[in-house]
Amino acid sequence: MAYAYWRQGMAEREAVFHLFFRRSPFKGKYTIHCGLSRVIDYLKNWRFSADELSYLASLLDKMGQPLFDSGFLDYLSDLRFSADLFAMVEGQVAFGQEPVIRVQGPLLQCQLIETPLINLTNFASLVATKATRVCAAAGQDTVLEFGLRRAQGPDGGLTASRASYIGGCESVSNTLAAMAYQIPPCGTMAHSWVMAFADELTAFEKFSEIMPDNAILLVDTYNTAQGVKNAIAVGKQLRSQNKALLGIRLDSGDLNELSHKARQMLDAEGFSTTKIIASGDLDEYQIAQLKNQKAPIDIWGVGTRLTTAWDQPALDMAYKLAAIRDEQGRWQYKAKRSDQLSKSTYPGIQQVRRFFSGKRWLKDVIYDRELGFAASFNKDGDHHEDLLIPVFKEGQLVYQEPSIAEIRNYCLRQLQSFKDSEIQEYPVIIEPSLQAVKEKLLG
Amino acid sequence: MAYAYWRQGMAEREAVFHLFFRRSPFKGKYTIHCGLSRVIDYLKNWRFSADELSYLASLLDKMGQPLFDSGFLDYLSDLRFSADLFAMVEGQVAFGQEPVIRVQGPLLQCQLIETPLINLTNFASLVATKATRVCAAAGQDTVLEFGLRRAQGPDGGLTASRASYIGGCESVSNTLAAMAYQIPPCGTMAHSWVMAFADELTAFEKFSEIMPDNAILLVDTYNTAQGVKNAIAVGKQLRSQNKALLGIRLDSGDLNELSHKARQMLDAEGFSTTKIIASGDLDEYQIAQLKNQKAPIDIWGVGTRLTTAWDQPALDMAYKLAAIRDEQGRWQYKAKRSDQLSKSTYPGIQQVRRFFSGKRWLKDVIYDRELGFAASFNKDGDHHEDLLIPVFKEGQLVYQEPSIAEIRNYCLRQLQSFKDSEIQEYPVIIEPSLQAVKEKLLG
Repeated sequence: MAYAYWRQGMAEREAVFHLFFRRSPFKGKYTIHCGLSRVIDYLKNWRFSADELSYLASLLDKMGQPLFDSGFLDYLSDLRFSADLFAMVEGQVAFGQEPVIRVQGPLLQCQLIETPLINLTNFASLVATKATRVCAAAGQDTVLEFGLRRAQGPDGGLTASRASYIGGCESVSNTLAAMAYQIPPCGTMAHSWVMAFADELTAFEKFSEIMPDNAILLVDTYNTAQGVKNAIAVGKQLRSQNKALLGIRLDSGDLNELSHKARQMLDAEGFSTTKIIASGDLDEYQIAQLKNQKAPIDIWGVGTRLTTAWDQPALDMAYKLAAIRDEQGRWQYKAKRSDQLSKSTYPGIQQVRRFFSGKRWLKDVIYDRELGFAASFNKDGDHHEDLLIPVFKEGQLVYQEPSIAEIRNYCLRQLQSFKDSEIQEYPVIIEPSLQAVKEKLLG
Repeated sequence: MAYAYWRQGMAEREAVFHLFFRRSPFKGKYTIHCGLSRVIDYLKNWRFSADELSYLASLLDKMGQPLFDSGFLDYLSDLRFSADLFAMVEGQVAFGQEPVIRVQGPLLQCQLIETPLINLTNFASLVATKATRVCAAAGQDTVLEFGLRRAQGPDGGLTASRASYIGGCESVSNTLAAMAYQIPPCGTMAHSWVMAFADELTAFEKFSEIMPDNAILLVDTYNTAQGVKNAIAVGKQLRSQNKALLGIRLDSGDLNELSHKARQMLDAEGFSTTKIIASGDLDEYQIAQLKNQKAPIDIWGVGTRLTTAWDQPALDMAYKLAAIRDEQGRWQYKAKRSDQLSKSTYPGIQQVRRFFSGKRWLKDVIYDRELGFAASFNKDGDHHEDLLIPVFKEGQLVYQEPSIAEIRNYCLRQLQSFKDSEIQEYPVIIEPSLQAVKEKLLG
């Protein structure tokens, strides 16, 4: 397509594309926008390498001729990102149909970055959203992200760790992610530690010798009840050194029953501050059920189901052309109809305005930058905020990225304030003059 | 854990770990083992960088003291992979409980590579398996992998493209994967091409001007029936230049109804060789249903549901200690029991032997290298093959990797021969003396 645009002399034609999702994932009411940081890195360094250009030059069409003119490859070799990009900040609470990123610039560039933009935000937003749900289910308890091993590749694991932290997890077991993104790392022992020794008690003793302050003993390798007894024995040794047993971990079996039993056993021996950590195929639904059963679990280790977004492993993001200048330089607005109504799109140069009354969220309005607001259109509330902010201007980065801690705080604060607004169906409204243009376009 | 092993003087103790999955994914009967190539690259270059070592040195315990002794960091800085690694070849058909990789070497190394080994094989095997299922549903039709955009990160997309090709897809839309792995690239136009022009007919004409031999026209941007008419008009123009219209693509709506209608319209105008390509949330279940309805679709573009393994986004791989030498150098076999029987593990130094009668597969037997086969144990068939082959010997790569085309051919041949064996429940048997050791260990 890029080649065909170039051949048609349309490569530099100014166009507007929006990145948006249609529905929030997990049958939920909101989506946490995440992944912008990777988009910024990608676009700052966007260029075709010599290897990539030679590869493209090597491709042949069916007649055995080079697929691409060399003039096109020269064009690509000089290509740098020179468009405007507006985006919601990371950690923002977003809703279906809202543009989370808007790109305005040369058509060919807008088109080439389609797949990277979707790829770098779709999964990050999905996991950040999932993490907020898992953390909400856990209430005040700590949630640890444990899911690198079965994430969809090493990079999937990195993205998932970062997004999980933004969505509320307290730390991650992925040490590389911890290093790369300044997230607290954490970890516990695996079954192989216990199995590497002649017996479980020895394994626990040896571990707590080395990590007297950090020992979380995994008690389910052989028999959980016996495992708790062995942990208590080690706890008594630690107590005699004025140390406290930090925690035990349950990783299998009936977590409700086992946690009640373990709590009783620990309390009976005076280990009421020793934490119970649970893990093993946990997600927001499992955690909610265990909370419902009043399982005395203090810390939740959540892995695969968080880092692969188990019950919906992709968000339905799309990136669509919404306006293009014609040969006379006039904006032509564009909407896709399709036979599937849910796949129709909105035209224009869009912005999202959020209306508040004090701290209470009232509604979001998607409006067109050129059309503005219809005079008759009710502007509710006492203040509002436009959610798409400038990130690149003519290819130059004009946005100062916040730290990950700031993104996380922003995300959790926003989400709380959305939840506090207690709106059953949060209204996302298309500004009437934009709606009229769409209807006219789709006939 | 690595630190604790090192502090205990157990870092170099020889151990055996197996990587295995418990059940094949998607409620299926087999799993395609995939991802070994990434494991090899990873282990060949396995070392701690200066940055990583400084990061580890910067970590503090709760008392504000360095978490790790500097001697440990020195140990890590000199660390190179020096273990033996046996594996099934890529593209092999594997079953639950079978070791797909066995590592034998220093305990600390075996432990540190746990997460990378799982991460690099779990997802690749999952997608290769999914691809074989999608291709089986498509029968003799071509399947194209289209799923980079919503894959779980760029690396997830790369892994998915490679595994999809191994599992039978003919080409991939991910050009970087095509370049990196020598896979044929392919692509079609997007809705934005159609929307960038004043009308659909112009958009089709302009595209086929530039790609007269490669034009696949996307007909569902506005109205599919009109889209097919416009494609036919362009087909007639191509015909007048002695070119043929390659194909049209349906991306939404009722694909059965639309494909029948489009086929009729194309045939009525003499375009019987023009292909119909379908895409849009397809997977093996959708394809089977459309095949069942005799939808005249020639080529299937499969995206998100393949590259994220939609209905089961993680395989349940685990990596468990199975043997360790004691201080006297004697092997101690190890099995994990747990309260959850499905999570119990097999001990030993395992190998998988597959028995055949002619071309017919009979059964797989998991046996222990030291215990061998019980004399009384029935050796069915006329030949057999041991599936784990040496890849690294004392850290040196001793395996010559096949090309991706060879892996793909091997995979498809193996799978066909498994299917031709027509066994309802393929037997995976634990050799009796190994079973006896497990039972003894678990009491």
